[in-house]
Amino acid sequence: MLRPVNADGNDGRRLRGNRTRGIVLDAAVNLASEDGLEPLSFGRLATQTGVSKAGVQALFGTKQELQLATIAHAARVFAAEVIAPTDRLTPGAERLTGLVERWIEYAETPLFSGGCFWSATMPEQDSHPGPVRDALVSQRDAWIGLLARELAEARSSATEDGQLAAFQLNAVLSAVNSALRLGEASASDRARDTARQLINA
Amino acid sequence: MLRPVNADGNDGRRLRGNRTRGIVLDAAVNLASEDGLEPLSFGRLATQTGVSKAGVQALFGTKQELQLATIAHAARVFAAEVIAPTDRLTPGAERLTGLVERWIEYAETPLFSGGCFWSATMPEQDSHPGPVRDALVSQRDAWIGLLARELAEARSSATEDGQLAAFQLNAVLSAVNSALRLGEASASDRARDTARQLINA
Repeated sequence: MLRPVNADGNDGRRLRGNRTRGIVLDAAVNLASEDGLEPLSFGRLATQTGVSKAGVQALFGTKQELQLATIAHAARVFAAEVIAPTDRLTPGAERLTGLVERWIEYAETPLFSGGCFWSATMPEQDSHPGPVRDALVSQRDAWIGLLARELAEARSSATEDGQLAAFQLNAVLSAVNSALRLGEASASDRARDTARQLINA
Repeated sequence: MLRPVNADGNDGRRLRGNRTRGIVLDAAVNLASEDGLEPLSFGRLATQTGVSKAGVQALFGTKQELQLATIAHAARVFAAEVIAPTDRLTPGAERLTGLVERWIEYAETPLFSGGCFWSATMPEQDSHPGPVRDALVSQRDAWIGLLARELAEARSSATEDGQLAAFQLNAVLSAVNSALRLGEASASDRARDTARQLINA
């Protein structure tokens, strides 16, 4: 294997470690999107990636750390693909509409092999209190918070309960993801119509 | 074991068979509400119920038949506990409000050990076309259809898209189930508020 030219041995090892970590986490996010976070194991990821089981274990230490790193990785990919492209849009209706469109795209052509990472992992974890569930809840709250802020910005009247509207919009987006996986292509329009109704409420 | 007094041997066997079937299906619904329909197996149900593995297999034949019978059993329990109690209510706003209240109760104090049967099984099956997914979809469509009918009856104006409103209400009910499992007790009011908004739309 070539050593990076401008790096001493330590940096080279660290670069390879980071790259390996990324490969294992990509595989972990895809596996979790299919079967949830519980079946994740050092052995299964080793088989999937060709990295040795000891190598995978050395990167994450415990299964819980692996699960937390997998959630953080999914969140980074989600933020980069769904949220970041709307950064340049005007806050409010325009940005909210953009977020809904990016979500629809995310649901229509899933980033992860099993479809929506959050839909696959939350029902599994929601009855198991602990750091893993907390990490999922914190991602969900951040997403609903983002919808609430953009909704508040978008609406002419500030009298409506923005948190309720954000909860409703998030519920519909999740249901659209599920409906699309059942082959109901028209579901995407339900997300658009709901966003429009809530913006104009 | 006592033989039923007013039954010949055949009827006695059939009665025992029905009772055993009910015991196995109760266990199957609870298991599926926790881990989904895939981990259901004759062996696991035998261990859970004390019925012999051959006995369980004789009742259902194939794993797919077992899964379909489990869905039908969950649907019967759901209909008896959530839908039937609203039969005597006036169609429209009153009955819809009753359905929402029964759903909240269903979500707050789950009928099944793992919580909502549909939330646990649909994400697992939605990417696997076949009779099992079809059975789940048909239950979901019947439920959304019921909400749509009551919404149409409840609303003063018939101009709104009742199917969209039913989709939205179902989405919020599912999200409330999930939020309750995350400990957000206030989520129940979001279901009530959403139903009220949609009725008055």
